[in-house]
Amino acid sequence: MKRETKIAGCEDRIRTSFAKQGLMSTLGATLTNVAPGLVQIAIRPDPAISQQHGFVHAGAVSAIADTAAGYAALSLMPPNRGVLTTEFKINFVAPAVGDRILARGKVVKAGRTLTLAQTEVFAESGGQEKLIALLTATLMAVEGRAGVSD
Amino acid sequence: MKRETKIAGCEDRIRTSFAKQGLMSTLGATLTNVAPGLVQIAIRPDPAISQQHGFVHAGAVSAIADTAAGYAALSLMPPNRGVLTTEFKINFVAPAVGDRILARGKVVKAGRTLTLAQTEVFAESGGQEKLIALLTATLMAVEGRAGVSD
Amino acid sequence: MKRETKIAGCEDRIRTSFAKQGLMSTLGATLTNVAPGLVQIAIRPDPAISQQHGFVHAGAVSAIADTAAGYAALSLMPPNRGVLTTEFKINFVAPAVGDRILARGKVVKAGRTLTLAQTEVFAESGGQEKLIALLTATLMAVEGRAGVSD
Amino acid sequence: MKRETKIAGCEDRIRTSFAKQGLMSTLGATLTNVAPGLVQIAIRPDPAISQQHGFVHAGAVSAIADTAAGYAALSLMPPNRGVLTTEFKINFVAPAVGDRILARGKVVKAGRTLTLAQTEVFAESGGQEKLIALLTATLMAVEGRAGVSD
Repeated sequence: MKRETKIAGCEDRIRTSFAKQGLMSTLGATLTNVAPGLVQIAIRPDPAISQQHGFVHAGAVSAIADTAAGYAALSLMPPNRGVLTTEFKINFVAPAVGDRILARGKVVKAGRTLTLAQTEVFAESGGQEKLIALLTATLMAVEGRAGVSD
Repeated sequence: MKRETKIAGCEDRIRTSFAKQGLMSTLGATLTNVAPGLVQIAIRPDPAISQQHGFVHAGAVSAIADTAAGYAALSLMPPNRGVLTTEFKINFVAPAVGDRILARGKVVKAGRTLTLAQTEVFAESGGQEKLIALLTATLMAVEGRAGVSD
Repeated sequence: MKRETKIAGCEDRIRTSFAKQGLMSTLGATLTNVAPGLVQIAIRPDPAISQQHGFVHAGAVSAIADTAAGYAALSLMPPNRGVLTTEFKINFVAPAVGDRILARGKVVKAGRTLTLAQTEVFAESGGQEKLIALLTATLMAVEGRAGVSD
Repeated sequence: MKRETKIAGCEDRIRTSFAKQGLMSTLGATLTNVAPGLVQIAIRPDPAISQQHGFVHAGAVSAIADTAAGYAALSLMPPNRGVLTTEFKINFVAPAVGDRILARGKVVKAGRTLTLAQTEVFAESGGQEKLIALLTATLMAVEGRAGVSD
């Protein structure tokens, strides 16, 4: 029971923080799954988030992939911490087209100061998923810095 | 004269391509400088592109930094090519706050298939610039693929 | 039977290529597993490959991780191709100490020109494995370039 | 005078630390320049550090590039700190061949905990230099951890 309460608390905290991200709302992104160490964010291809050839822009793919990694990291941190992205790297292996773009972030190694997380991004078309990008991110836990808590 | 015409042609082509990027318009990004091998893009901090602490979202910073790198690469390619981002890596060294965020992309090494470009991102506040992020990207030249030309 | 012959051919080719890598021999590295899309390389901690605190040097860890990724990519390419590393990124999550350091490379996405591979590096101590590093690499297939075939 | 003493102390400390790196000696690497925020390391192409086509191995290039970045970071830290590589990314733009391979590391942004550094790697042939690789690294300052000081 306690563990469930804690998990629910973690989800609430992440949903509250996500709702404050103006960019996620601007991109039409939704937080579709939250579990300890695992977060999924989805967007729908749309001209408003496209690049010049009509695919979803690499920048929009990166934005949801980075956010999924960040919240996966945050989901394993104590309540009074905030999380900032130190760096990320993303490889694009197929164009971002389809019904939905799904970014699934998971923690690879949680540390006291730095957490390594990875996000796989899939294009979903007709119920099929295809890997389109892979992101690796270093997230930094921040404590006691004014304005930076989640 | 010929060189100037060529440069003007390059700028036109990049401005036309940029105008097709729905995401750039959604983020309020503007193409402030175009020269062979050098492209600058600017955004203004706004709640619509923020993360949860009110800074400009790392995803929005990445989006303009990747785009600046991509157009810097494209500016050195023959007219019938398109450019796709293969991968990029970005380090964030200070929060994205200020009057404007400026992403300056330049080509490090132009190759036949792959181009390496780098973008420095600055926060401009009261006329002062401060480095906030550094991106390195590999861009791939694409020729004769339907729908991918710039 | 045919498939087995092909796999054996792939292993021979990789073992022959590996034997030509002077650096692998200098580092005391051994090719411990070869399968289509999966290659493992091992080194033993030794003062000759250490950094200043006595851990295995990040450069030696990177060298075997990159090589494992490269051969995982090569294992899925036709015989007349060579493979070159275009770029890699590696995160270090724990010091490289133990009985052996094991780099396990696997292909994430095989493409005609570019292959994305990932290598997990483990420190093995007393039969236990611990993740110490994660590498993501882009490998380029090279055909018909003098001196570059494997 | 004081500044010179400090710089000399910094160089001594880095030369002493470098001399403890077994890998650098194994690769035949030499520390050719040390200045605050700037460190250069050189190796000579040799079969002992080659990959399968006879070029200097990407792993050897990475090892000196990472080390140059690390010492550039260390050169700006107080004496009681040690430095560890958190992550690095390297792009290879030309084969590592020539008379010498030179890795020039410089600090991009020095922080209290994390420092961002970048290393350009050149192949020197007949007195001419050509860029062959570009590395970006995050270095972490470590204080008071047993065995980790430089």
